[in-house]
Amino acid sequence: MKSLTVAIIGSKFMGRAHSNAYRQVNRYFDLPRTVRMKTICGRDPISLEQARIELGWEECATDWRTILTDPEIDVVDIAAPGNLHAEIAVAAAEAGKAVWCEKPLANTLDEARLMARAVADAGVHNGVFHNYRKLPAVQFAKDMITSGELGEIRHYRGVYLQDWLTDPSAPFSWRVARETAGAGALADLGSHAIDLARHLVGEIIRVSGVTKTFVTERPSEKGTMTVDVPDAALVLAVFANGAAGTLEVSRCALGRKNHNRFEINGTNASVAFDLERLNEIQVCRGGGFETVQVTGDYPYADAYWPTGHGLGYEHSFINWVADAVRSYDAGTPMNPDFADGLQTQRVLQAVEDSAASGNWQAI
Amino acid sequence: MKSLTVAIIGSKFMGRAHSNAYRQVNRYFDLPRTVRMKTICGRDPISLEQARIELGWEECATDWRTILTDPEIDVVDIAAPGNLHAEIAVAAAEAGKAVWCEKPLANTLDEARLMARAVADAGVHNGVFHNYRKLPAVQFAKDMITSGELGEIRHYRGVYLQDWLTDPSAPFSWRVARETAGAGALADLGSHAIDLARHLVGEIIRVSGVTKTFVTERPSEKGTMTVDVPDAALVLAVFANGAAGTLEVSRCALGRKNHNRFEINGTNASVAFDLERLNEIQVCRGGGFETVQVTGDYPYADAYWPTGHGLGYEHSFINWVADAVRSYDAGTPMNPDFADGLQTQRVLQAVEDSAASGNWQAI
Amino acid sequence: MKSLTVAIIGSKFMGRAHSNAYRQVNRYFDLPRTVRMKTICGRDPISLEQARIELGWEECATDWRTILTDPEIDVVDIAAPGNLHAEIAVAAAEAGKAVWCEKPLANTLDEARLMARAVADAGVHNGVFHNYRKLPAVQFAKDMITSGELGEIRHYRGVYLQDWLTDPSAPFSWRVARETAGAGALADLGSHAIDLARHLVGEIIRVSGVTKTFVTERPSEKGTMTVDVPDAALVLAVFANGAAGTLEVSRCALGRKNHNRFEINGTNASVAFDLERLNEIQVCRGGGFETVQVTGDYPYADAYWPTGHGLGYEHSFINWVADAVRSYDAGTPMNPDFADGLQTQRVLQAVEDSAASGNWQAI
Amino acid sequence: MKSLTVAIIGSKFMGRAHSNAYRQVNRYFDLPRTVRMKTICGRDPISLEQARIELGWEECATDWRTILTDPEIDVVDIAAPGNLHAEIAVAAAEAGKAVWCEKPLANTLDEARLMARAVADAGVHNGVFHNYRKLPAVQFAKDMITSGELGEIRHYRGVYLQDWLTDPSAPFSWRVARETAGAGALADLGSHAIDLARHLVGEIIRVSGVTKTFVTERPSEKGTMTVDVPDAALVLAVFANGAAGTLEVSRCALGRKNHNRFEINGTNASVAFDLERLNEIQVCRGGGFETVQVTGDYPYADAYWPTGHGLGYEHSFINWVADAVRSYDAGTPMNPDFADGLQTQRVLQAVEDSAASGNWQAI
Repeated sequence: MKSLTVAIIGSKFMGRAHSNAYRQVNRYFDLPRTVRMKTICGRDPISLEQARIELGWEECATDWRTILTDPEIDVVDIAAPGNLHAEIAVAAAEAGKAVWCEKPLANTLDEARLMARAVADAGVHNGVFHNYRKLPAVQFAKDMITSGELGEIRHYRGVYLQDWLTDPSAPFSWRVARETAGAGALADLGSHAIDLARHLVGEIIRVSGVTKTFVTERPSEKGTMTVDVPDAALVLAVFANGAAGTLEVSRCALGRKNHNRFEINGTNASVAFDLERLNEIQVCRGGGFETVQVTGDYPYADAYWPTGHGLGYEHSFINWVADAVRSYDAGTPMNPDFADGLQTQRVLQAVEDSAASGNWQAI
Repeated sequence: MKSLTVAIIGSKFMGRAHSNAYRQVNRYFDLPRTVRMKTICGRDPISLEQARIELGWEECATDWRTILTDPEIDVVDIAAPGNLHAEIAVAAAEAGKAVWCEKPLANTLDEARLMARAVADAGVHNGVFHNYRKLPAVQFAKDMITSGELGEIRHYRGVYLQDWLTDPSAPFSWRVARETAGAGALADLGSHAIDLARHLVGEIIRVSGVTKTFVTERPSEKGTMTVDVPDAALVLAVFANGAAGTLEVSRCALGRKNHNRFEINGTNASVAFDLERLNEIQVCRGGGFETVQVTGDYPYADAYWPTGHGLGYEHSFINWVADAVRSYDAGTPMNPDFADGLQTQRVLQAVEDSAASGNWQAI
Repeated sequence: MKSLTVAIIGSKFMGRAHSNAYRQVNRYFDLPRTVRMKTICGRDPISLEQARIELGWEECATDWRTILTDPEIDVVDIAAPGNLHAEIAVAAAEAGKAVWCEKPLANTLDEARLMARAVADAGVHNGVFHNYRKLPAVQFAKDMITSGELGEIRHYRGVYLQDWLTDPSAPFSWRVARETAGAGALADLGSHAIDLARHLVGEIIRVSGVTKTFVTERPSEKGTMTVDVPDAALVLAVFANGAAGTLEVSRCALGRKNHNRFEINGTNASVAFDLERLNEIQVCRGGGFETVQVTGDYPYADAYWPTGHGLGYEHSFINWVADAVRSYDAGTPMNPDFADGLQTQRVLQAVEDSAASGNWQAI
Repeated sequence: MKSLTVAIIGSKFMGRAHSNAYRQVNRYFDLPRTVRMKTICGRDPISLEQARIELGWEECATDWRTILTDPEIDVVDIAAPGNLHAEIAVAAAEAGKAVWCEKPLANTLDEARLMARAVADAGVHNGVFHNYRKLPAVQFAKDMITSGELGEIRHYRGVYLQDWLTDPSAPFSWRVARETAGAGALADLGSHAIDLARHLVGEIIRVSGVTKTFVTERPSEKGTMTVDVPDAALVLAVFANGAAGTLEVSRCALGRKNHNRFEINGTNASVAFDLERLNEIQVCRGGGFETVQVTGDYPYADAYWPTGHGLGYEHSFINWVADAVRSYDAGTPMNPDFADGLQTQRVLQAVEDSAASGNWQAI
């Protein structure tokens, strides 16, 4: 079988999750290509070699530019912090590589535009790791909407809540600095929330937003540091199809660990999902809500185990990669691609603009 | 024991709920006064007499003005539609009667202002039936906040969702006409949602809102009628204490029957409540959420049954009346009184203004 | 309208619950008779007079035999402890009074037999307060079974769990002494569990049981007392229709306050109920379980409030009395009557016999 | 690093689950040995080669005896049907191989005894794949018990319910024939239920059981076949420490897909677990039940992802293998080993004996 040779930049949380997906995808999915995990890139040679062994890559590179000149590499996977996305993606596209990039696409809208243009100009395959689209439960909701089973959509209600910054003494990190993390919770969690809303309901045409930095200074080894990103963002969203929505993200919602929840109310049915119970979806067809276990024969789930044997967080990435390999091989766009990620970025920017101006912002 | 003699205007849903409360309150609460249910007022003498017997009143009156001149009447209970509140309340206050009024206080802010001024000028006891404040679970949340157990409040997340207008062919009624129902779902459900937010978190200082009328015409016996009130309203709210909130109300949220839910995230604890499971509250003190059954020894619940034997919707009104009788007798303000209801009305108006202007609205 | 005049013996927990039902039943149900609450009986004249006022009875009697000679009394309600049931019931039946008796019917099978024979011989109306049969959710399950919607029943899984005797230092009371409380938790909770099983699935033909007294001595004002009743009972049950069931009751199940739960698995559908969420029933028709709110138009619920406005524990008694008044007036048997309660008593005795012998016991 | 070379017999559901565990275990756990996946054994060479590629084994063997003479093989993994366990395990032990065997240990108690004796005589490392012991939630419960935090255990309540045999027309398979599947649902699901009960509470000393075959004939390609194994089993269990329990397993519990649930009530705390929500455990420390997400820093979970990012069914096997590799290397017994599996087998046999005799059966 033909192989698809991948190099990855990044070996931390996302590097681990993507690597797992590459290792596992051909074990579960019947794909036109076998993924070959060639090169892992990072800065520190010692920890990189350790990661290479643990995660299953053939070789290391401490300068990511070397993979661009390696003719064996088909795909460059960007699992590095957001402030590096644009530079790498543009260079990779210009080198003719497919580019698969962790979300959010970029830290700024300008960077995202550059990236989307670069892959379009180069004509290379490209995708954004909005992995939650690929959960069986989310696909179930999507199918209900596409088939018309939900009817006209009236309401979207999305939150993505965590609580690890509730404590004012929680330490400063790159995740609360604009230089490295863009819009903070809005970028990190909000990009997921907006992506799911757009994926399921369609385009958002205008927003009103407010952002909050509840704790403006946090301790670090270097002394007290200023937090210049939001801890939370709250958004009203109007969709092109007439639906009205609320979106809220926070890292200060005590008790909510990874509470990425949505509820969609249509004229014929409603669905509700919570990432903390990712093997279930709540479905209402006019009476009460039914708890459906989306295991066994459901989309994506059918690649794994029988009914009632649930999947975990990591499977969302395996499913994403399965779709990416298929679309790469078929020469069709990945869903979602950079153009799609750019649109999410436009909404993120509109939320920030609205929060700054106090006015509704059109997208 | 001294009695407290009540007359009521209205015999439908709210008339039944209030009457039940008057019948039951002295059975469960040790109060300084015995409630005497003297007069029930309505327009149709035949159905009124039927209601009098069923609900337990001594006599009927087809003109509510007659009760104002009855020296035995201490309290006038206004359980009539919102467009009648102001006229009755002002007249009752001027007649020196205590006035207990169903929510929302009025259909317009101007009317609410008149009413608040009238009871203040007359110096009569006054209260608004924001009955959900009086549920054991809500009181539990309030106590956690007051005691500081919740810490600083970061987030309030309130929805009040129903689904009886989801179907576009659901018939026109007085509840979807501005003349009778004021701001529709915003007034009816939103007044509850805003009252709970204000009661628990404190004053809202600015809002951004959007309202939706998904179905603009509905059938009636007289032919197609135009709906001129919102089916739904979505609100961003900023509180005086720095908390940020979302509030959403709808009558088109399929599957949600009476889903009056709030979640409050503080720096030390979080609480979540859902009216559809009114005998429970979810409490997080840093780990996960604990389902506490607020039966038995909890506030208000302790007047009824042992632990584990739950209350119903109607008990919220019994509890409200118990507080009203006590405050009447003590000569202290009812919580909530008209001044409080007026403030909720200001927020309702601000939401409508914001939805109309597209700008944030200060309160 | 004709009245139905009731006297009650007992003014504690059950006396309060029954009294509430008599006060409220004609407010909500359209019945052929108006309940008149004439006499309340008890031993201590001072607390009895207090109860009379609170609960709404016309007069007191410190000797329950006086009500048997009062020609106005139609119904004798026995809300006294179980060890008094037989004597009162037999005397009341012989006096030609209808007899409505709190559950379990008696403390011993012999007493229950006497009682059933007495009402049969006298031809008087009779009923046992198995109030949970009258909850909307339980009626919903019953209707699904009767209509065949559930199909053949395979499994019944019933528990009734409380936790107030978990602590070994919880004090001795009449509820843990065989003389006053019969079989303790088995009688108190087990009679509910068995009644629901029989009501819903049909007759139990054999059982295997084990009982446990975890704490054999408890403190009291008189010093340490011996507990001679079970804290818990666990039962395997085989039904006449081929279904197999487990039943378990305990007062030592920490965290379970009033957890009267059942699940029934049929060939076409399953249902599950939990008394702690009495306004809901879980229904599976082949997929997952749907949470149905049995408010609004559901049986019994339709006497009260609109959809989504839940009932409480006490409404089960109001519903019971409504059925009792109707059947009294119609001259038909109450469901459940003494013969029915006697059959539950046979199952309770069989569980005790099985626990003692270590063998399965036929009923 | 030293390697540990494994051969597996079986390539279906369990073969896939075990293979996944071998592939993944060194990616997540820091172990003293690297697992080498050498040989996969099966009967059909074509499908075996396919499985070899998909699952990641080096070579195929169509006769499992060949692996016993391969000096490189350290461990024989038996993922074949239960009727083959004894022969393979005994031969592997005699060949000096470690033996890791899928549950239940055997189809009969005699076979299980043979197996336990064989590994003991040979002094080889041995383990039974009771994988659910290795879930973070189950380990959490175990730790609460071991530390005394639960107090004295009063109650164990275990069910393992599925619904794939509810339909009488569901086809005959090896899983409903005694020759291949031993005691059917009792063996398959009951071995899990009993293992968890013993693991958590301690030894069961006597049982009363009843088994049910609701559908005695099922269709197959060869015509109607007789079902000679139970569809369901219900058990009362008394534990050595005085706790009382119910255990129930069924394949006819409509709506329950993989509902392996237990609840343990102690004098200080209670815990409840449901395999369908395997990333959670319910914990009561005297008030209500708290939903704890056992992700992030919890035992076993800490090998994978941050808080709130849940695991799936398959991770239970990875965790099992991690423990097995560690204990192999340390020369200590695996938990659970064959002796442990044998004791579960004794309880299974006692349930069958009790169901046959109608008497309690000591173990």
